Amino acid sequence: MRTVQSVFQDVLRDVTQEHIVVEFAGRTDTGVHAAGQVVSFDTNFRHAPEVLQRALNAGLPPDVRVLRAGEAQPGFSARRSARQRWYRYIVDNGKVAHPLRQRYAHWEPRRLNVQAMNAAAGQLLGWHDFSAFGQAPSPISSSVRRMDWAAVERDGETVTVDLKATAFLRGMARSITGTLLRVGSGVITPGEVGRILEQRARWESGPPAPAKGLCLMGVSYES
Amino acid sequence: MRTVQSVFQDVLRDVTQEHIVVEFAGRTDTGVHAAGQVVSFDTNFRHAPEVLQRALNAGLPPDVRVLRAGEAQPGFSARRSARQRWYRYIVDNGKVAHPLRQRYAHWEPRRLNVQAMNAAAGQLLGWHDFSAFGQAPSPISSSVRRMDWAAVERDGETVTVDLKATAFLRGMARSITGTLLRVGSGVITPGEVGRILEQRARWESGPPAPAKGLCLMGVSYES
Repeated sequence: MRTVQSVFQDVLRDVTQEHIVVEFAGRTDTGVHAAGQVVSFDTNFRHAPEVLQRALNAGLPPDVRVLRAGEAQPGFSARRSARQRWYRYIVDNGKVAHPLRQRYAHWEPRRLNVQAMNAAAGQLLGWHDFSAFGQAPSPISSSVRRMDWAAVERDGETVTVDLKATAFLRGMARSITGTLLRVGSGVITPGEVGRILEQRARWESGPPAPAKGLCLMGVSYES
Repeated sequence: MRTVQSVFQDVLRDVTQEHIVVEFAGRTDTGVHAAGQVVSFDTNFRHAPEVLQRALNAGLPPDVRVLRAGEAQPGFSARRSARQRWYRYIVDNGKVAHPLRQRYAHWEPRRLNVQAMNAAAGQLLGWHDFSAFGQAPSPISSSVRRMDWAAVERDGETVTVDLKATAFLRGMARSITGTLLRVGSGVITPGEVGRILEQRARWESGPPAPAKGLCLMGVSYES
């Protein structure tokens, strides 16, 4: 399968003539967008980062672009040095699927109760075992993460779900959003979300919200 | 050529089984988007406007949608009753063409001087013969229009040009924007724009800005 990671790696190898393995800060499944992805790699490329940036952008397809490039401290890893990931999910909550929004939003015609969604989201804050909402990278690794921010906002017919956590399990952002959408449309109560989380009830969390509404907005590092 | 107008008219005729001619409030050339287009027509369709709306949306391609429908006063015309049109032009002014912006924005990597663009835009306000920036619908019709609002704003790497006028000549919004872009990149001074307007110097106005950055945002009516 042709992923952004593999496309980027191929172009980077072409440009540098090195066999480079790239680290991506945040996972973006097929169909998920990224506005603030961060990647890191080691290279012997001898020119300035801006030169590498231009060469990469010349080789990449138009829907993938390097917006900034710079030299990192030794030992820096886009993935392991990251302290927080921010995902945003956009819902088009109008009665009619809006043509200008359909590319980056999931259409949900039933009017969502944002207050209930926020009450549910609040129960996710702090350190928790999130296995009800996603899969750990391997069977022996922990599924405990810290949720720092979980908020739902309405602006007219657009509902936005913002999630910030130390890291996300596989499928976690979409599964949490899918569960919040069930709360917003009255299928389950806000309190159910805390119980599902506590009981790690994977089978009770909502179906993952469709990929196209999700965007990795940014990644934070120390200093 | 397959325009939004012809597509809409075809679906409307299918649904109503009537030979209906539709009036569109604002012109949208090929590639120009519309978020707030208004259309009007006479019909003997016997069901409620919401029923017609649903039937139309079921037949229209996904990039064209009826967002609201209602019955108008007798004599109402989407085009002739309109008092003001609002067009917005979006420029991606980042050094790298941003993948998530490229669909609805024109990429201009040179840093635009928004202050100079605003000084130029201010000279367009009021009643003027705008023939320097567009074509009247017919050789005998007037090219005098009233510009009520002309402002340029920067939000990070996005520059937005808002134009509100009683009506727009053919190509006027894109031609004005193209001329303002020349001001923003230092090719001409803000004062030149007033002179071009006054002298109706069609050959001195900037090339029309590309269609994909333009959007008809809305149309105003009395009451």
